[in-house]
Amino acid sequence: MAGSSPGAVRPRTVKGFRDILPHQIVARRRMIDTIRSSFERYGFVPLDTPAVEYVDALLGLGEEGTKSLFRMKSPEGEEIALRYDLTVPLARVVAQYPDLPRPFRRYQVSPVWRADKPDPGRFREFIQFDIDSVGAPSVLADAEILMAMDEALRALGLRSFRIRFSSRRVLNTLLRWAEVPESDGMRTLRVLDKLDKQGMEAVLLELGPGRVDQSGDPIPGLNLPGTSVEKIRRFLGLPREVGPSSPGGSPAPGRGAILDAAWSLFRGVEGAAEGFDELREIDRYLDAAGIPVDRVAVDLSIARGLDYYTGPIFEAVLADLPEIGAVFGGGRYDGLVERFLGTKVPATGASIGVDRLLTALEKLGLVESGWATARVLTTVMDRDRTVDYLALTSEIREAGIPAEIYMGEAAGLKKQIAYADRTGIPVVVIAGSNEFEAGTVSIKDLREGKMRDTEAGSRNEWLKKRPGQQTVPRSEMIAVLRSLLGIR
Amino acid sequence: MAGSSPGAVRPRTVKGFRDILPHQIVARRRMIDTIRSSFERYGFVPLDTPAVEYVDALLGLGEEGTKSLFRMKSPEGEEIALRYDLTVPLARVVAQYPDLPRPFRRYQVSPVWRADKPDPGRFREFIQFDIDSVGAPSVLADAEILMAMDEALRALGLRSFRIRFSSRRVLNTLLRWAEVPESDGMRTLRVLDKLDKQGMEAVLLELGPGRVDQSGDPIPGLNLPGTSVEKIRRFLGLPREVGPSSPGGSPAPGRGAILDAAWSLFRGVEGAAEGFDELREIDRYLDAAGIPVDRVAVDLSIARGLDYYTGPIFEAVLADLPEIGAVFGGGRYDGLVERFLGTKVPATGASIGVDRLLTALEKLGLVESGWATARVLTTVMDRDRTVDYLALTSEIREAGIPAEIYMGEAAGLKKQIAYADRTGIPVVVIAGSNEFEAGTVSIKDLREGKMRDTEAGSRNEWLKKRPGQQTVPRSEMIAVLRSLLGIR
Repeated sequence: MAGSSPGAVRPRTVKGFRDILPHQIVARRRMIDTIRSSFERYGFVPLDTPAVEYVDALLGLGEEGTKSLFRMKSPEGEEIALRYDLTVPLARVVAQYPDLPRPFRRYQVSPVWRADKPDPGRFREFIQFDIDSVGAPSVLADAEILMAMDEALRALGLRSFRIRFSSRRVLNTLLRWAEVPESDGMRTLRVLDKLDKQGMEAVLLELGPGRVDQSGDPIPGLNLPGTSVEKIRRFLGLPREVGPSSPGGSPAPGRGAILDAAWSLFRGVEGAAEGFDELREIDRYLDAAGIPVDRVAVDLSIARGLDYYTGPIFEAVLADLPEIGAVFGGGRYDGLVERFLGTKVPATGASIGVDRLLTALEKLGLVESGWATARVLTTVMDRDRTVDYLALTSEIREAGIPAEIYMGEAAGLKKQIAYADRTGIPVVVIAGSNEFEAGTVSIKDLREGKMRDTEAGSRNEWLKKRPGQQTVPRSEMIAVLRSLLGIR
Repeated sequence: MAGSSPGAVRPRTVKGFRDILPHQIVARRRMIDTIRSSFERYGFVPLDTPAVEYVDALLGLGEEGTKSLFRMKSPEGEEIALRYDLTVPLARVVAQYPDLPRPFRRYQVSPVWRADKPDPGRFREFIQFDIDSVGAPSVLADAEILMAMDEALRALGLRSFRIRFSSRRVLNTLLRWAEVPESDGMRTLRVLDKLDKQGMEAVLLELGPGRVDQSGDPIPGLNLPGTSVEKIRRFLGLPREVGPSSPGGSPAPGRGAILDAAWSLFRGVEGAAEGFDELREIDRYLDAAGIPVDRVAVDLSIARGLDYYTGPIFEAVLADLPEIGAVFGGGRYDGLVERFLGTKVPATGASIGVDRLLTALEKLGLVESGWATARVLTTVMDRDRTVDYLALTSEIREAGIPAEIYMGEAAGLKKQIAYADRTGIPVVVIAGSNEFEAGTVSIKDLREGKMRDTEAGSRNEWLKKRPGQQTVPRSEMIAVLRSLLGIR
């Protein structure tokens, strides 16, 4: 064959990238399938877009994406790059196909790429799972994003999550009321967004003179006027949602009560009503769908970092794993399609961090991991009878039971059982000359008395004792396998 | 918001790339799920690898990939590129993780990228669906690739496919026997591979002096000696598989008969036995699995274009759609992992061309397409009662029926029904003040007397007639919807 000389290429993944090995995929796929079903129950439809976009479509959206593009040239010499999120491609699609039915309510689960500095647990390629409604002007669309996310998180078995929503319009009212200089607006919101992680004192210091973090490094402050900081302190001191599972433990105030308290502060401020009206409307929709405050709550302190949000914003945290941060985030972004079309198109949506959510499910014991897809391994005790073992295996497969025939280097029973044990195949079918002569097979359930828990030296002993092993007539093989594996 | 000015960016996909819109995804996903189930029944496990690899891993594998890489730089300044197939990443994975259980029998369904000249129906980004066994020395592994592919094609509803296999070893025997100069070997095989499409005469001319194609363009010949061409002609004239559904219509000779005929030609040639032995062994395994010759046949004229194959090679064609070419292809490539590890590792596998197969299924009417995931649309007749419509919708969803509430711009019933009709939502729930007062809902089955077949002018007429519409007590809504939609 053509090619480089043997051993000349060192096998390695590119820095910041990773392989997803079989035992890591099964749980991931199950999670994605569950979320997909939830979203489809809400009528969201799937979309797929290319991995690459023209750079002009990706640029000009503020900080997040522009610094971290994987850029390349198309064969025609044009500037292209890997997409860094799924929202920009959606805006492009909506602009490019004017005949798409509207509202266009789509989900997309696809990798995105960011040329960031990789950290442990932070990769340059990762899956996002987004839902968005484009062309739906009412905040009913925002309410449905919250409801679909609530359904998805519950379908995954999560019980201690809390979805929180706020509105950029209310936060803009806060900025006006607190007389924050316009040029400091977005930076002020990013500081507010740290409230959960850093606490009130740290936030107020960052809004003012700055502070020193735990490792002694200085964090510069925004140097807002003292009156502004004081007003923001009053706002942050309002009643906030405290869930039953969070440490405070006091009963959560209703969504309406939280809105009333904030409204009493802002009532006189110009344009204040807009933001409150949309949050009250969302509250009514959540009530109609029977969603209680301990699942979806108002929290006016959440701000989200993206600067293109224009209305309601949302995120979800897990009360049992607060350190993990938000497992999804999103909001309304009525201006994003405008870049392409020249006219505003209402849009709202949210994005799930698939890795983060999967980590959470693993920590909470809500996903199984496993390597094998096969439920049965047919061992090959006599290579000259491979044809007979294959016929056995085919019979098992035809009964709808995923099965594998041992194909490794020639090996004894012990090694073949070790292979099944290692890959998580639960049941082994064994036939030696005795069994063939008698028209029987031996069936061994590896889950009874695991070999892997056995000292290497005592494995021969273990094999002799044959825990979980039975010999049955060949005609009963399928029935016994079905019963062992709980397959109808 | 930050960003470019409104309308400044032209929305377009990069040349050679495409969006997969919702009505195109559903069939695609169903096809992929079916294939996945078939492969899992054979015990293949899923794998996922990064989109990018180091260029040194991708280069040096002969013609196919090296010219067509989408290259870029990693943030560290290293040469990286998008993968162009799934086989090279698999070889890297096997070399990189020495602790992987072997044989490692994996499937992967992922996009690959090639910076080729795009043609109609040929894209620079496309999905491949591969299965491979690495570390299995016996051709039992090859036989299982054939069996799993047979199972997958049948599970898709295909009946007229023909899987064909041959061996590079037999073809090498042919080259020796026909005294083809070694430097012309691979090119000779690529010409042979055109037999199905171009016919015997064209193939012989391309091996000899060359020919002129239909548009009058010259195709240069390999200028093999006349004696070589004559011997190849004798080989190609041997009995070949002719399926029951192919135009010839004569009964197919058995796999053994075809091998016997070729063996009579090559019997004296040095090393000839090896290739025939492996093909006969595969034949025995196929017999054991009960796979008849009209599904999997020997065809010694298939050669496959890749130069890294070392043993059995295979492909599948559809008798009803011969013009579409092979829907999968593959073979044994014992040298590929060696580039990384320095030692040979036996490997064999095949790759499905997902686009091509999907096109075939569409042409044969074996897939449904459809846009909507929702089965019910709740219309909004009175915006002030949105909360009530949402409660209705929630009730339907809680019953497990995917449902959507109309969220577009304010619109009358006609326009809302047109939206359902266009997106393929089959049933509409309607409630006006009459229905709310009476505690009823109206349910309309759009599949009865389609509005879309109705002249625009007569749509009001159509609405008045109410085909497929019934009014039922609210308490019976779910039961009626279930019955209409055939949901238990």
